[in-house]
Amino acid sequence: MSTLSTQPYKGTRDYYPADKRVQNYIFATWRKVVERHGYEEYAAPMLEPLELYTAKSGQELASEQTYTFTDRGDRVVAIRPEMTPSISRMVAARRQELGYPARLYSIANFMRYERPQRGREREFWQLNTDIFGVEGVHAESEIIGLAYDVVKAFGASDDMFVLRVNNRKLINYMMSQYLGLDAVQSHLMVKLFDRKNKIPAETFRDQAIDILGEEYSGEGVRKIAKLIAAKSMADLPEELKQSDAVVEVQELFTLLKSAGVQNAVFDITLMRGLDYYTGTVFEVFDTHPDNNRSMFGGGRYDGLVGLFGVEAVPTVGMAPGATMFQHFLESHKLLPVLSSTTDVCIVVPSQEGLEGALNFSRKLREEGVNVEVDITGRKIDKQIKSVLKKNVPFMIFVGNEEIKDELYVLKDIASDTEERLSFERVVSKVRARRGAQQDDEFAFFE
Amino acid sequence: MSTLSTQPYKGTRDYYPADKRVQNYIFATWRKVVERHGYEEYAAPMLEPLELYTAKSGQELASEQTYTFTDRGDRVVAIRPEMTPSISRMVAARRQELGYPARLYSIANFMRYERPQRGREREFWQLNTDIFGVEGVHAESEIIGLAYDVVKAFGASDDMFVLRVNNRKLINYMMSQYLGLDAVQSHLMVKLFDRKNKIPAETFRDQAIDILGEEYSGEGVRKIAKLIAAKSMADLPEELKQSDAVVEVQELFTLLKSAGVQNAVFDITLMRGLDYYTGTVFEVFDTHPDNNRSMFGGGRYDGLVGLFGVEAVPTVGMAPGATMFQHFLESHKLLPVLSSTTDVCIVVPSQEGLEGALNFSRKLREEGVNVEVDITGRKIDKQIKSVLKKNVPFMIFVGNEEIKDELYVLKDIASDTEERLSFERVVSKVRARRGAQQDDEFAFFE
Repeated sequence: MSTLSTQPYKGTRDYYPADKRVQNYIFATWRKVVERHGYEEYAAPMLEPLELYTAKSGQELASEQTYTFTDRGDRVVAIRPEMTPSISRMVAARRQELGYPARLYSIANFMRYERPQRGREREFWQLNTDIFGVEGVHAESEIIGLAYDVVKAFGASDDMFVLRVNNRKLINYMMSQYLGLDAVQSHLMVKLFDRKNKIPAETFRDQAIDILGEEYSGEGVRKIAKLIAAKSMADLPEELKQSDAVVEVQELFTLLKSAGVQNAVFDITLMRGLDYYTGTVFEVFDTHPDNNRSMFGGGRYDGLVGLFGVEAVPTVGMAPGATMFQHFLESHKLLPVLSSTTDVCIVVPSQEGLEGALNFSRKLREEGVNVEVDITGRKIDKQIKSVLKKNVPFMIFVGNEEIKDELYVLKDIASDTEERLSFERVVSKVRARRGAQQDDEFAFFE
Repeated sequence: MSTLSTQPYKGTRDYYPADKRVQNYIFATWRKVVERHGYEEYAAPMLEPLELYTAKSGQELASEQTYTFTDRGDRVVAIRPEMTPSISRMVAARRQELGYPARLYSIANFMRYERPQRGREREFWQLNTDIFGVEGVHAESEIIGLAYDVVKAFGASDDMFVLRVNNRKLINYMMSQYLGLDAVQSHLMVKLFDRKNKIPAETFRDQAIDILGEEYSGEGVRKIAKLIAAKSMADLPEELKQSDAVVEVQELFTLLKSAGVQNAVFDITLMRGLDYYTGTVFEVFDTHPDNNRSMFGGGRYDGLVGLFGVEAVPTVGMAPGATMFQHFLESHKLLPVLSSTTDVCIVVPSQEGLEGALNFSRKLREEGVNVEVDITGRKIDKQIKSVLKKNVPFMIFVGNEEIKDELYVLKDIASDTEERLSFERVVSKVRARRGAQQDDEFAFFE
């Protein structure tokens, strides 16, 4: 038999403890924020019938990016590429039993068949938060406020990111009334705008002309240029201000201001790729020059629950990804130093002392200390070398002599200092260190 | 377009908040126990190359139970049916960089193509804990001790479960030396013993005779009957006691006793289905008459890391499943009453008071209270009805009058009592309730 590869599957990551600590820090911070806002956790299966995505997610996602296959019972299934269709299905299944507004969140993994690149992985982890059952802009204000709080909870300042907001109703009005496009042209133009920041300006212009049609392209291109130049609602062309959606956008910005969201701006060119949005859409952009990109987004999608044969349920949601967040935190130097969940490694100087060291570790555990013992029987220098690889705050030497004297050498690894301490003092030192680390990690949140 | 189904994919579960609370309680308890023992978390991809499983997991798992398909790049991949091959791959990839003993755990979802039945789901969640780099029985003692602690942490008493222990080396000796079987017969006999408790005694006997071969079956069946009758090491046939593995088993039981594990027993008929075990194997059995079955197991597998072209790393691990644990806890009435992570729902008597209610909720959040506001603008009785569906401990009424008087009606939903309280008193009441619930959930652990 040939040797197996140690590489993870293309576009996926192995999370060793040091990587998992970062992910867990992101998950824990997300969790704290959304639970503080009254969202409760749910989970859905990793497989769904493919038709769940072809129905509304959009052509590209369903047919080009989804991991799909036929199971042994001839069902065509997909590994979930996103959560929205699954949670819509779940809400539809218990439409009567749920209490509204239903505020629900999940943290889960997804797969998309993409060319792997920075920030784009085939397997990725997302927070999904949705509020079900609210028609008015208070729901949009809440979700955008939550997006703001989620970023701020990591210690970000308002200049590190910007929230761009638009409205699909306004976009539809713009496409049909202002640019005079038919349904097919509108759909293509939305997709083109959605790619605007990823393609050269010239390509954008050429493709816009293709969509507009030759004879109309001159006026159309001028009108589009006006849109792109608009930096606020006030700059919008007068014809567009006739749309009812303008009032909705204005109301939303008033609510965001009173909720303390300082860095939300209106952006008529923001589209969001997915087909199911029906009202407000928004995206959070990292403003760091090295990482100037969309971090995540969301919006209102009132039509999904109704696809399951029940009365529609108005919904607003968003879905930040963990890797995007990690890049944001790294770019802005917001990631704290994270050490192991283990507090102490016990080094055992001689094998005869192992029984005593194991008993000592049990006593520490009873006091709430996370502790491991070197049970390999190796030489002490090898044991110490191993401990130093683990990013654990403390090491402690427990041999027969220490147990007889009831005094133990506790080494603080970061400061490279040692003390001979009683059992009680060991426990209080370790507890103090853990408390300080937790305060540090969540310093910006409280 | 036809209506989409609201059913989850066959053999998988939707976890609504009430279901997810139970799962989270199980996950949190697992996490607490294994981190207390110095295990640190990792994660691996949900897809792996199929060959990772054909190599060693065993024929049935790899070819009959795995969700496998060919990806768009012509790779034959599988949704992971278990974690052991992935973590072995990860350890092999960083064999030099890791500190030993490497104590690693993960909580992840897996898929197997099985006929769904109680306790067997196509998608299931498991804790995986493994210790890498320890040759001696101290590693087995630690993992079996961890299995014991993991069950005890939920408040189980020693009579609710039993740990059955055997050793693959002893099994191999028994198959070749005691029963005189060749390699093929041995393999079949191990699989047959593994099914022993799931098939009628007569079927077991008939299939044993098939494997033994006609002329030898009389003596073989008598020898097997002796094995099944053995209730301890002492009862074993004398020929078997010649095996070196007997000493190993005895040492292990001595260590388990000094670690306080009271309910471990030797069972020569215990095999474990997977092919990769090389030494000690064990299973935890629920003793409840309604749920008398194997809950989970583990053992030593020293050969897996070496399959990746690096020097072998001795390993012992185990993998409890969340649904099995849930059935165990339900059978023994050990599951606590779990309420929402949300502490308070704010009911808004009139729409004009909404702004004030939102401000009030922000103040509560700053004090660490998890709170949601009804922003639907519905009539008060509908709002109350919704709150009662959510299993949240408190409801609070915030209108303009309450804000003016700075006194708020806090309703304790379980006891159906109301009090008019200041903001500070609301905060302290809510905090006290949450502290009490947490103490209750982890009462048996500390």
